[in-house]
Amino acid sequence: MGADLENLVNEAALLAARKSRTEVGMPDFEEAKDKILMGTARKSVIMNDHERELTAYHEAGHVIVAKTVPSSDPVHKVTIIPRGLSLGQTQQLPVEDRYTVSKSFLINRLAILMGGRAAEMNIFHEETTGAGQDIKQASEIARKMVAQWGMSVLGPIRMDQHDEMVFLGRELSTSREVSEQTAKRVDREIKRFVMEAQDLASEIMEKRHEDLKRLAAALLERETLDGSEIDAVLTPAPAADPA
Amino acid sequence: MGADLENLVNEAALLAARKSRTEVGMPDFEEAKDKILMGTARKSVIMNDHERELTAYHEAGHVIVAKTVPSSDPVHKVTIIPRGLSLGQTQQLPVEDRYTVSKSFLINRLAILMGGRAAEMNIFHEETTGAGQDIKQASEIARKMVAQWGMSVLGPIRMDQHDEMVFLGRELSTSREVSEQTAKRVDREIKRFVMEAQDLASEIMEKRHEDLKRLAAALLERETLDGSEIDAVLTPAPAADPA
Amino acid sequence: MGADLENLVNEAALLAARKSRTEVGMPDFEEAKDKILMGTARKSVIMNDHERELTAYHEAGHVIVAKTVPSSDPVHKVTIIPRGLSLGQTQQLPVEDRYTVSKSFLINRLAILMGGRAAEMNIFHEETTGAGQDIKQASEIARKMVAQWGMSVLGPIRMDQHDEMVFLGRELSTSREVSEQTAKRVDREIKRFVMEAQDLASEIMEKRHEDLKRLAAALLERETLDGSEIDAVLTPAPAADPA
Amino acid sequence: MGADLENLVNEAALLAARKSRTEVGMPDFEEAKDKILMGTARKSVIMNDHERELTAYHEAGHVIVAKTVPSSDPVHKVTIIPRGLSLGQTQQLPVEDRYTVSKSFLINRLAILMGGRAAEMNIFHEETTGAGQDIKQASEIARKMVAQWGMSVLGPIRMDQHDEMVFLGRELSTSREVSEQTAKRVDREIKRFVMEAQDLASEIMEKRHEDLKRLAAALLERETLDGSEIDAVLTPAPAADPA
Amino acid sequence: MGADLENLVNEAALLAARKSRTEVGMPDFEEAKDKILMGTARKSVIMNDHERELTAYHEAGHVIVAKTVPSSDPVHKVTIIPRGLSLGQTQQLPVEDRYTVSKSFLINRLAILMGGRAAEMNIFHEETTGAGQDIKQASEIARKMVAQWGMSVLGPIRMDQHDEMVFLGRELSTSREVSEQTAKRVDREIKRFVMEAQDLASEIMEKRHEDLKRLAAALLERETLDGSEIDAVLTPAPAADPA
Amino acid sequence: MGADLENLVNEAALLAARKSRTEVGMPDFEEAKDKILMGTARKSVIMNDHERELTAYHEAGHVIVAKTVPSSDPVHKVTIIPRGLSLGQTQQLPVEDRYTVSKSFLINRLAILMGGRAAEMNIFHEETTGAGQDIKQASEIARKMVAQWGMSVLGPIRMDQHDEMVFLGRELSTSREVSEQTAKRVDREIKRFVMEAQDLASEIMEKRHEDLKRLAAALLERETLDGSEIDAVLTPAPAADPA
Repeated sequence: MGADLENLVNEAALLAARKSRTEVGMPDFEEAKDKILMGTARKSVIMNDHERELTAYHEAGHVIVAKTVPSSDPVHKVTIIPRGLSLGQTQQLPVEDRYTVSKSFLINRLAILMGGRAAEMNIFHEETTGAGQDIKQASEIARKMVAQWGMSVLGPIRMDQHDEMVFLGRELSTSREVSEQTAKRVDREIKRFVMEAQDLASEIMEKRHEDLKRLAAALLERETLDGSEIDAVLTPAPAADPA
Repeated sequence: MGADLENLVNEAALLAARKSRTEVGMPDFEEAKDKILMGTARKSVIMNDHERELTAYHEAGHVIVAKTVPSSDPVHKVTIIPRGLSLGQTQQLPVEDRYTVSKSFLINRLAILMGGRAAEMNIFHEETTGAGQDIKQASEIARKMVAQWGMSVLGPIRMDQHDEMVFLGRELSTSREVSEQTAKRVDREIKRFVMEAQDLASEIMEKRHEDLKRLAAALLERETLDGSEIDAVLTPAPAADPA
Repeated sequence: MGADLENLVNEAALLAARKSRTEVGMPDFEEAKDKILMGTARKSVIMNDHERELTAYHEAGHVIVAKTVPSSDPVHKVTIIPRGLSLGQTQQLPVEDRYTVSKSFLINRLAILMGGRAAEMNIFHEETTGAGQDIKQASEIARKMVAQWGMSVLGPIRMDQHDEMVFLGRELSTSREVSEQTAKRVDREIKRFVMEAQDLASEIMEKRHEDLKRLAAALLERETLDGSEIDAVLTPAPAADPA
Repeated sequence: MGADLENLVNEAALLAARKSRTEVGMPDFEEAKDKILMGTARKSVIMNDHERELTAYHEAGHVIVAKTVPSSDPVHKVTIIPRGLSLGQTQQLPVEDRYTVSKSFLINRLAILMGGRAAEMNIFHEETTGAGQDIKQASEIARKMVAQWGMSVLGPIRMDQHDEMVFLGRELSTSREVSEQTAKRVDREIKRFVMEAQDLASEIMEKRHEDLKRLAAALLERETLDGSEIDAVLTPAPAADPA
Repeated sequence: MGADLENLVNEAALLAARKSRTEVGMPDFEEAKDKILMGTARKSVIMNDHERELTAYHEAGHVIVAKTVPSSDPVHKVTIIPRGLSLGQTQQLPVEDRYTVSKSFLINRLAILMGGRAAEMNIFHEETTGAGQDIKQASEIARKMVAQWGMSVLGPIRMDQHDEMVFLGRELSTSREVSEQTAKRVDREIKRFVMEAQDLASEIMEKRHEDLKRLAAALLERETLDGSEIDAVLTPAPAADPA
Repeated sequence: MGADLENLVNEAALLAARKSRTEVGMPDFEEAKDKILMGTARKSVIMNDHERELTAYHEAGHVIVAKTVPSSDPVHKVTIIPRGLSLGQTQQLPVEDRYTVSKSFLINRLAILMGGRAAEMNIFHEETTGAGQDIKQASEIARKMVAQWGMSVLGPIRMDQHDEMVFLGRELSTSREVSEQTAKRVDREIKRFVMEAQDLASEIMEKRHEDLKRLAAALLERETLDGSEIDAVLTPAPAADPA
């Protein structure tokens, strides 16, 4: 503990000094903590060739799944130009606003999210940390499908322990209790949804292996592709079985 | 963590700037957080045809169950004109104030809440996120039936872990402890109540399939129906078995 | 989450506006939250005939048990005139101050609390929410009998997880830990005490069915009865077996 | 929730008004909460004859055990004059300051604490709430014997979950984690210590039944007895087996 | 609860009054709480003969183990003059600063900590509360050996639930989760380390019973002994088996 | 508790006095707490010969693994000059920035972290506390591999209980719940990753025992070695099997 604390205090003092202030404030501690945990914020991203390739395949994977599963939003753009902290981005643009979504739409969404890693695995046969945000998002969607939207075999029962509403720093709503048994079942169903999505994504990668390579190549060459450019690269999508 | 935090700080700074303020305050962080989690607040709702249809069937489902089960409050109005964040609404108006409600009234209430999804399933054979609020409400009612009102086989014993009274930001009342075993049993009884309500709602949808279609059609045409207009559309309700 | 939050903020803003204030304060959020959760506060209670009857039987049930079990405090008054948020009230007045109470007194107290629902069940054969507060109180007494006063087979050992003392917003006393196994046993003993009290109350309702009807009728007619008026209505209490 | 909250707010407003203040402050809420939970604070205690008798036997029970077990502190005074919120008191005065206590001293202390109820049971054959504080104290001592002082079969290992040090409103020390299995064993050993103490106390009450009656009678007559007066009432202590 | 609260408030008011202040502040509540929980702070410690003897043997036990196990720091001084709240003290003085310690050093440290009680048991055959602090320290060291330093059969994995870093009143670091199974295994290994240390300490007491008596006698006579005085009293240490 | 508290208050008062202040503030309590828990901060580190040797082997162990496993960052510098609170340091310098890392890179990273202790064990056959920070870091990486990056047999599902984002003193993000069963599986996989890394590191130490000794000797002589100096000391790395 001593080392961590001393480390933090020193770092915070340095930061305050650098800003020519004589007092060490809470923001300094925040910044110091972040710096210790994450290293200095990366201002400009310069990827090496391998990471560019990895990113290209990752984004291409999202696109390929999105172009294969039925009833997903059209792909508007895909890019491997880093922006902020993300190395690439696949943008889907709904044709119109959407207020309610169906279970099959969400299952396809999970598959699209799993598409990034599926592509990496298809080509490089190894997991990377690049799928971290996809995993987080997919797990949250799957949890809501099970615990809030009643889309699993567990039935239409709200099964999350805490309401999400934190307002002005304190929880306003009442907390709900679920037993360990229910929690176990929720975990099992979340896993089922995500694993099935992963299997579907992997299957699509295998079937459209050539498209994946062509799309990644196009991305490495041109960095950004819009919807019609993507369509020009890809062969027409084969029929796929979404669930 | 880094990405999330940077994202949030950026978003908050942008929001403050947009309001020509030089300081980033807590409200900016609140707004930034909401925006990141939910996308920009939807100011005007323009549903596509499928969603209008879905909403019409969903609301019609609530109405059909309410008109079928015995001893529920009269349906005052049903609408598919979006208001605030809800896409449609079924309003029941008690004939007079109600201070105490019976187990059978609550069981019917659960069935009415399940009616929305039951109608969607009857027509489209798929779950949507549209039932999220119904599921939440039904689960809360079922939990109270079990844990506060002693209406399950577990007997007239208070079985929730925390009192709901949060006052001026801190919990005033004492907390109660329940064992994991009790929590498991409470979960089981909640599930039983909700599943039975869902079964009842589904059964009613099957029996009154034609009424459901007629009511949804009327809603799609006229958008809002009052009590007598609903009665004019529906055939007289068949006898139903509430529990 | 979005809907709830927007709802809350809107409601609070409306409340502040209604009071001609330009700032939305924490009290407004409190009030808004209550309104959303509970509907507008009911200012004047006008019960329908059925609810008056239900209330009359409920209160009469409390009285009948209190007049049957040995060594309970004399019934001072019973009323079905709503006051505040309670629809009726049975007042027992100790002959003198009481500082220590015996296990049998508490067992009788539990039975009196269970008397309200027992009467409803005896007449209407259905549970209502009217017994919610009785259930809460009975469960708390039973929990103390088990976990604080050593009156169950679990022995004279303190078995609650947290001390009740919350002072100036923070817990002053040390917390105690109990294992899941102990928590399970405490739950089991609480259930035993409450279920036995319910059985005793039901038994008394059966034996004094005629008295129950006479007392409820008197209450419906006169709304409030004092001790001697109650005695005049009832036949002399038969001997009852308290535990 | 509504009823409790309204109740609390009303009560607090009344209290503030009674003190001619126009603002309702946190102390009013505190007082209101206490009043609701406990009734108005009892200013003057006037016990009835039965409670005086109960108290006399309860205190006499403590004294008898203290005079029977070896190596306990001399009894300085015993009284049934209520003071503050306690109805009676047995004061033991150590001959000299004590800084370290042995396991056998603590086992005797547990027996003395159990003596109050043992006496009540010996005479009235029923548990009362009067032993609540004794149970709390005994359980805390037994817990420390097991979890802090290493006096049970579980060995000299610290086994409580939280350190007791709450300072200036926040926990300064680190928390320790114990598994459910350890918590279960701690509970079992606590129970063993308290149950053995109870058995010892009951046994002493049986053996010295006449002394118990004589001492209680003397207390009822004279209300307070000092050490030599107690000795004059009692027969010389028989040999007792402390553990 | 009422009694505790009233008690606390009264005590705090008295303390404030005694200091001629008209307001009761948080420090008064702190002090009042301590007084209620612990009695008035003991200003001057006057031990009786038995406690002096107990303390002498307790400290001598620490010394004997420290002089027997290999590779522990030299004993600088041992005293039975009470200071602050401790009744005696054994001071070990490292020959030089120490930044990293080995498992065997820690195992010896555990044995030295267990030496106090081992000596008491060897002579008086009974546990006392005097080992409370030793038990606490030993348990904390053993926990770190298992959960932070990877010195048990559970391997080099961090296994504590919370980081220790509480800074400016809030936890800065992220919390780690361990399963109940892992917690159970950690408890088991902690117990193993402490029990083995206790066995080693007891064995040493048996082997060096005469030295223990000689050292305690010297302490009772001279109250404080420095390193060379200790060596003069003791026979040369026999070979001992540290683990 | 009393002793701890008194100790803390005294220490804080002393610290305030030493700074000629009349008020004892929160920083004084912080400092006092640290001092009690850790002893006065060590300003200058003077290691004895054994600790220097231990440190040299520890750092050499990190280097040897880093130079043996494929695809790890080049070792820039290794030193046994203490700095801040760390006794030595091995610095790896990535050839270029790295944004995504592969599972095999992380597995190698775990092995490098385990290299310090593996070297100590290879030479001294005993665990020391020196590996505490390595264990902490390795456990955190392994936990992320399992619970955030989907690199274990448990699949691409987010499985940690709390999000890490603590912002301005309160948790902004929603908490996730995992069942005890999932927690148990996560623990098992974390252990698997770390144990395999330890085995790999130990194996490398055995194979390159001579290199380890040569590198440690060079470090003891020259204290700091840069990349080319390290290469000069080591024999060319044999082929190693990373997973």
